[in-house]
Amino acid sequence: MKLITFGEVMLRLSPPGVDRFTQTDSLTMHFGGTEANVAVSLAQFGMQAAHVTRFPDHALGRSAAGYLRKYGVDTQHIQYGDGRLGLYFLETGAGSRASQIIYDRVDSAFARIGANSIDWETVLSGASWFHWTGITPALSQGAADCLLAGIQTANRLGIPVSADIVYRSNLWQYGKTPQEIMPALTQGCTLVLGSKNLFSDLYGVVGSTFQESGRALMKRFPNVRYITDTKRRSISASHNQLAAKLFDGETVYKSRTHDIKSITDRIGTGDAYMAGLIYGLLTFNDLQRTVEFGAAASALKHTIPGDANLATISEVETLANGDSSGKLKR
Amino acid sequence: MKLITFGEVMLRLSPPGVDRFTQTDSLTMHFGGTEANVAVSLAQFGMQAAHVTRFPDHALGRSAAGYLRKYGVDTQHIQYGDGRLGLYFLETGAGSRASQIIYDRVDSAFARIGANSIDWETVLSGASWFHWTGITPALSQGAADCLLAGIQTANRLGIPVSADIVYRSNLWQYGKTPQEIMPALTQGCTLVLGSKNLFSDLYGVVGSTFQESGRALMKRFPNVRYITDTKRRSISASHNQLAAKLFDGETVYKSRTHDIKSITDRIGTGDAYMAGLIYGLLTFNDLQRTVEFGAAASALKHTIPGDANLATISEVETLANGDSSGKLKR
Amino acid sequence: MKLITFGEVMLRLSPPGVDRFTQTDSLTMHFGGTEANVAVSLAQFGMQAAHVTRFPDHALGRSAAGYLRKYGVDTQHIQYGDGRLGLYFLETGAGSRASQIIYDRVDSAFARIGANSIDWETVLSGASWFHWTGITPALSQGAADCLLAGIQTANRLGIPVSADIVYRSNLWQYGKTPQEIMPALTQGCTLVLGSKNLFSDLYGVVGSTFQESGRALMKRFPNVRYITDTKRRSISASHNQLAAKLFDGETVYKSRTHDIKSITDRIGTGDAYMAGLIYGLLTFNDLQRTVEFGAAASALKHTIPGDANLATISEVETLANGDSSGKLKR
Amino acid sequence: MKLITFGEVMLRLSPPGVDRFTQTDSLTMHFGGTEANVAVSLAQFGMQAAHVTRFPDHALGRSAAGYLRKYGVDTQHIQYGDGRLGLYFLETGAGSRASQIIYDRVDSAFARIGANSIDWETVLSGASWFHWTGITPALSQGAADCLLAGIQTANRLGIPVSADIVYRSNLWQYGKTPQEIMPALTQGCTLVLGSKNLFSDLYGVVGSTFQESGRALMKRFPNVRYITDTKRRSISASHNQLAAKLFDGETVYKSRTHDIKSITDRIGTGDAYMAGLIYGLLTFNDLQRTVEFGAAASALKHTIPGDANLATISEVETLANGDSSGKLKR
Amino acid sequence: MKLITFGEVMLRLSPPGVDRFTQTDSLTMHFGGTEANVAVSLAQFGMQAAHVTRFPDHALGRSAAGYLRKYGVDTQHIQYGDGRLGLYFLETGAGSRASQIIYDRVDSAFARIGANSIDWETVLSGASWFHWTGITPALSQGAADCLLAGIQTANRLGIPVSADIVYRSNLWQYGKTPQEIMPALTQGCTLVLGSKNLFSDLYGVVGSTFQESGRALMKRFPNVRYITDTKRRSISASHNQLAAKLFDGETVYKSRTHDIKSITDRIGTGDAYMAGLIYGLLTFNDLQRTVEFGAAASALKHTIPGDANLATISEVETLANGDSSGKLKR
Amino acid sequence: MKLITFGEVMLRLSPPGVDRFTQTDSLTMHFGGTEANVAVSLAQFGMQAAHVTRFPDHALGRSAAGYLRKYGVDTQHIQYGDGRLGLYFLETGAGSRASQIIYDRVDSAFARIGANSIDWETVLSGASWFHWTGITPALSQGAADCLLAGIQTANRLGIPVSADIVYRSNLWQYGKTPQEIMPALTQGCTLVLGSKNLFSDLYGVVGSTFQESGRALMKRFPNVRYITDTKRRSISASHNQLAAKLFDGETVYKSRTHDIKSITDRIGTGDAYMAGLIYGLLTFNDLQRTVEFGAAASALKHTIPGDANLATISEVETLANGDSSGKLKR
Repeated sequence: MKLITFGEVMLRLSPPGVDRFTQTDSLTMHFGGTEANVAVSLAQFGMQAAHVTRFPDHALGRSAAGYLRKYGVDTQHIQYGDGRLGLYFLETGAGSRASQIIYDRVDSAFARIGANSIDWETVLSGASWFHWTGITPALSQGAADCLLAGIQTANRLGIPVSADIVYRSNLWQYGKTPQEIMPALTQGCTLVLGSKNLFSDLYGVVGSTFQESGRALMKRFPNVRYITDTKRRSISASHNQLAAKLFDGETVYKSRTHDIKSITDRIGTGDAYMAGLIYGLLTFNDLQRTVEFGAAASALKHTIPGDANLATISEVETLANGDSSGKLKR
Repeated sequence: MKLITFGEVMLRLSPPGVDRFTQTDSLTMHFGGTEANVAVSLAQFGMQAAHVTRFPDHALGRSAAGYLRKYGVDTQHIQYGDGRLGLYFLETGAGSRASQIIYDRVDSAFARIGANSIDWETVLSGASWFHWTGITPALSQGAADCLLAGIQTANRLGIPVSADIVYRSNLWQYGKTPQEIMPALTQGCTLVLGSKNLFSDLYGVVGSTFQESGRALMKRFPNVRYITDTKRRSISASHNQLAAKLFDGETVYKSRTHDIKSITDRIGTGDAYMAGLIYGLLTFNDLQRTVEFGAAASALKHTIPGDANLATISEVETLANGDSSGKLKR
Repeated sequence: MKLITFGEVMLRLSPPGVDRFTQTDSLTMHFGGTEANVAVSLAQFGMQAAHVTRFPDHALGRSAAGYLRKYGVDTQHIQYGDGRLGLYFLETGAGSRASQIIYDRVDSAFARIGANSIDWETVLSGASWFHWTGITPALSQGAADCLLAGIQTANRLGIPVSADIVYRSNLWQYGKTPQEIMPALTQGCTLVLGSKNLFSDLYGVVGSTFQESGRALMKRFPNVRYITDTKRRSISASHNQLAAKLFDGETVYKSRTHDIKSITDRIGTGDAYMAGLIYGLLTFNDLQRTVEFGAAASALKHTIPGDANLATISEVETLANGDSSGKLKR
Repeated sequence: MKLITFGEVMLRLSPPGVDRFTQTDSLTMHFGGTEANVAVSLAQFGMQAAHVTRFPDHALGRSAAGYLRKYGVDTQHIQYGDGRLGLYFLETGAGSRASQIIYDRVDSAFARIGANSIDWETVLSGASWFHWTGITPALSQGAADCLLAGIQTANRLGIPVSADIVYRSNLWQYGKTPQEIMPALTQGCTLVLGSKNLFSDLYGVVGSTFQESGRALMKRFPNVRYITDTKRRSISASHNQLAAKLFDGETVYKSRTHDIKSITDRIGTGDAYMAGLIYGLLTFNDLQRTVEFGAAASALKHTIPGDANLATISEVETLANGDSSGKLKR
Repeated sequence: MKLITFGEVMLRLSPPGVDRFTQTDSLTMHFGGTEANVAVSLAQFGMQAAHVTRFPDHALGRSAAGYLRKYGVDTQHIQYGDGRLGLYFLETGAGSRASQIIYDRVDSAFARIGANSIDWETVLSGASWFHWTGITPALSQGAADCLLAGIQTANRLGIPVSADIVYRSNLWQYGKTPQEIMPALTQGCTLVLGSKNLFSDLYGVVGSTFQESGRALMKRFPNVRYITDTKRRSISASHNQLAAKLFDGETVYKSRTHDIKSITDRIGTGDAYMAGLIYGLLTFNDLQRTVEFGAAASALKHTIPGDANLATISEVETLANGDSSGKLKR
Repeated sequence: MKLITFGEVMLRLSPPGVDRFTQTDSLTMHFGGTEANVAVSLAQFGMQAAHVTRFPDHALGRSAAGYLRKYGVDTQHIQYGDGRLGLYFLETGAGSRASQIIYDRVDSAFARIGANSIDWETVLSGASWFHWTGITPALSQGAADCLLAGIQTANRLGIPVSADIVYRSNLWQYGKTPQEIMPALTQGCTLVLGSKNLFSDLYGVVGSTFQESGRALMKRFPNVRYITDTKRRSISASHNQLAAKLFDGETVYKSRTHDIKSITDRIGTGDAYMAGLIYGLLTFNDLQRTVEFGAAASALKHTIPGDANLATISEVETLANGDSSGKLKR
């Protein structure tokens, strides 16, 4: 089975430990992007995964691709050209002090991708899944167009498509609104991650509960077979509670609630969930087990430095099965 | 508005993380001093702040001044001369293991300051506040005399004066007791941070409650308009609870209690409180809001490496308003 | 008073912080071995301690000995020769993510020790205690034989002998089972650390409670005067609860339960307990105080990086007396 | 005496030691900009120095200003607003492997400065010198216009102006060529750093020697009193030879040639020269001594990590006087 | 064009900078193996490269493969199983202090490879070159047999084969001598790296000069078309001189001599030469240019941390063309 | 054979690499003292060595003793008490930038040693050599008196005594001059390291050459059998030349001149020479070989981080025999 993801990968730079930006004189490097994080996580689960993006043609762009390869992601479809490497600076908080991100991704090499840059037929040939998020169409018209071409190709080839439709309103700088762009993209989706507020905001689809709202979304977009969301309670920057639910049009499957008291890295926890969910859908044939696997994957990601979930299947299953004891493995 | 602080600044040296002194082969540098910490914190809040001290005239003394400037504190009144740079070594504990400090500050350049070393008229000209602590007069007769001249000048210029009167008995090595020295200094204060035990011990002022003791102190020192104190419950080196109260002669204003579960750095949390309080008194005209702001500032400091509180106004206000969720800020 | 310990010392290599093996490009070095950890801890308590082992005759073997000397352990009886330095790689977990160990100790210089390599008469002359564990006889026939010679010499010289009989089944690769080897070694012991399951498994000694099982063990091995064990509840990799009990054939002495919420390093916590217990037995003449001291030593070890407990007597006593407040010591 | 400099300050990010970009997972931070480097160096020499620039209004922009203050540069005229913090990535070479820079400075907060953003009358009031370089007008029309206003104000106030006219052709992206922009800026200069090739290229001023070319430049721009240049022979990335010359219209003063065999950091060595030269012109009244001081400052900079020369006057004078022995100072 | 390499990859652990083994408490990780180093270098030159080896099936074995993928080497033919990850500890010297290696590679997963473990037909299908070294057959009979199978398959498929025949006598521990094993392996080679002493020692082939000895070797092994060697003069651990020669049976092509004064990392410099040579033979059709390219690649490797040459084609060509100036590239 | 040394041991704190004091935010720890450095070096040569000093009774004082033990120096005679741990801050230079030391050793625990603090009979029992330097009597009257008692005891027991008589004039702060104190101490010496200028300055002993001056010193102090000195040419902070000579009253034995081009750490190179010399005198019975061994030891020390020479006998002999090639040892 092979997963294809599409989106920007940024260099993340963060002060060591919980130092503030103003205190540090070195920055730790990680690479990450919401879609690539899904690919990396699935590669750790043993799936084939390829990420499609566009990097600047210099040593740092090459390093970003090297990061993906190191973690088992196929980089043969990555393009190189002009533009910057997108960056973000992350200051990690603790307790009542929030983590902070300074984005510096404007005019990246990825944002300069063209509508026809990618030969989607080739890329998607033999794939079992295609995943995208609401960040990509926010970055440029070219990125939105290229994504649409990918989704349509996947549909044509009968490949399931998933989307995390969370968009960030301040990213949309190229003259279009998410409301103009997102519906056509969502049209081709099999699985959608989002809340009822998002459904209402983006598509004008309303419902008084997750279930109702989900049913309405499925009506609007008949390809959609699964709707999912996570619920996070942030007690402090170091302590969160997390649960997930998955709706197949009939039943809402709910995961246990994970009480996460020693947060190491909050970034990419949603992507870890999505990767777990896709893994479950592709291999378990059991939606309850699938949502538990996704939620456990997300919970584990909170303990792992960097953007991507490096947990193994057996680690995720241990937690999904309710063992959070963290007992030393010799 | 401009704050003036006066006191020793030391180089702090600590093993990385929670390593013990005997384990480490490198030491992380910070600079700090209880009064300068107040200046640094207020500079982060956007106030003008100048610190007055005396450093050895070598690269490390210059570095200490550079640290203050970096964080926005005016160093033009700092003097340079003979003597050492005061040091302290800090081993950070965790859980039931206490943090430990080895002081190495004897005979510092600051302790060699003279009674007339500082031209207080110039330094205090245009100032809105003057702050000192009980550490300074403990260090030498010269420091005590120089401080007294500063307080008297502030009084003459009508500048409010605050003091954290916590003294450390083992510091007083030059032949005077705190009981001989502190009353004349406290005489000139507007705001005093201390407990009823301290008031009794230092001034023979007694009262069965904080309120009564405070009233008695105000009677003894008619300049004093505010009395304040914090109450800390130490559950472990990593988990403290903290609340503050402020008394204006009539009402005791009490802050919420902060449950601080992920302590990064316990040093300077009292100074962070004092800075928050001064900020509130100078800008809020609301004593309840002031004591909440001070307590929240102190709580946040526990999450910030180093001696000084680098939190911003908006971070403090978020917590003062009861939001301790630490949600990621993008 | 002088303690002698015997066993392998390994180089431990771990990624910084909670990084995964696949993320790191540097490894932090510690040295450790279950028996040597006991020696190091007792040396911190001011006792004389000597460790007997065999290292490869190269710079890393010499470094391992240097580590022991640094912490006050006498290394004059250590032998140097062919074979590798045993290694283990430790990935430190957090929260629900377990720590992981990859052992790489096969064919170490220690495993090549011979039955007669050590002149036990000289080594044990003047000693007050001899300590061994079930790891040593698992490594090779030579190690088992050499250990047996040591125990028999200690018995002949009237020196008390303690053993942590936890063996690891996957270590026994030289053709013998623990059931064949352990009884003769246990024969010479005064103090045994183990559970009733272990007693049953290793010696066929059964009992429905710790007390009954202990009585049966004492019957089987008449030299044994004390039986002890710890009970750990692993809530997460960062949060454990720990208590200990000590049985003298008549009474079971139980320590308080320590709630350990900020685990820094889980390795060597059993060895820290054993060291505390030996210290108590040799100096307190009070079994309740002894078991409390041992349990507090173990609890403190969880906050100390590395394999060995570097806590001082006064730190252990503070916690043994119930003060877990971790208040800053100036 | 007070120096004013104007230009962009970037965050520099470099792998530790001589690691390649593709090898590192952390980046060391420095801040630098060719004009600010001059200000920092002169502040180390004890001069007053203020830098004028524009930073993004976030923690990293504030950190950049903090860096300048730490090293004694006045930051009161710095503006904060929209746009990015300019970055550059530096890989440090060794031997025959060249150092490499990846610039990432497009659309910085500084490039968005407006023609009238700076109140030059206030900024330059009381100044003894104004310094700019050919990088600034390359960045945007606004930067070029704002600089011109500064030069004209300096001229009106009778303040000497210096320029390093090295421009980088690939920077000029806003539709103007250096040939269109530089002459009007050079018009106001007292001191110009450049080669005869540059004079010919930028101004069409030709001469067969440095002297002749310099005389022609002075004819074209009558304000110019001094022309200077350095000559570098790059034997390897670790070994350079450097000499400087200064022409006052009559005599060419030449420095000794420095043989620099242990290059630590090649960046900012030209700025270090310029700072030394300005210092000499303002204080020595001896052009030979001035050019020696400048060349020695530049040579020393090669041994100092970061963009700016942190050498002291006495260190520079020791080397300017021919003592390159590097003898330990106790 | 695609290169296949076969051999062990070890984890290299070294103290930071030039610290001695006994001084350090952390170790920097690199991965390397003489054959894999060739693959990594050729991947940097843009060639396809796949490495064949066998790793332990644990996180560190997976990390070793991740390292190869990161640098563009195909890892699909790598096998995972029992055995250790081979290690070596490297202390980097300076000046007159030599670097030191402690090998710890006995009984590695690679040494346990079987004669028939690799499906060479598949692996070599479509390959343009196969490379091996004298280290591999030294490790175990299985490794030697498996290698022979590879060479024979390459011969059958008409793929050129190169060998660096340097063997290390102390590695041969499985009962065979290099003289028994190497001739059959050399039989299949197109290109041999070795000295006349080696030819005499291994094959009894003698000649009074490199040329004569080379001719004799070609007579003995008619497949061999090229013989090559490097000549190093070690002035100190920090300063070497290096030249190479290549013999095609008629002419000896000699490279310039590189004077390498700032050695960063001496390891893998021979592999860098071999990679350069293979690249040249495959692409240049010019033996003089080829030997210059190889020698320059080797010289550059001395400036690059780690085992493999990460230089680009353009960097190597600059140096091969005689430009060793190391001028900053912006 | 057993060596006894006596003197202060300081904690050395230095910025990483060649960073300036004002740039760093961490300090690397080493311990060192001119006499203890000799003990550490001789312990690496396999000799027994014990150091006598006085440390503060806190964790850092204990760490200093741990450092000595780690490197094989016996610490049983070390005393613990009041006073500070002496410190020095070292900034490492490069090229023409000199290294700089800021001493911070006033009022150390060692300076508070008493005339009768040490039971010299016990300490020196069985010793083969006693070594001191001119630093010790500079620190306090107590240190000078205690040293005199040690020398006199050594004389009484027939133990050879060596001295490095370099004093630092600015250290003598307790009211005595070196001229008052040094002669009585030198009286008991067998071996003196010093120059003819020092002999003239300290003892009024004059001679126009090293030889003549040495003869005059031997006349003045009949116990003295050997006089030695080193000659250093400082070409830069990174490049020195070094030679040594040894005079036995008849012949001057001169070592080869070492050209040291890659200086890592200049501190303690004189102590390394002295250790080599003592080793040679005690074991070689060949003065030419002895002076070569000493000079080579000193040359090697320049490549080793920290204060003490960690070179082995075989490394020193390789260089003493003229092999400075630094060839990799596998």
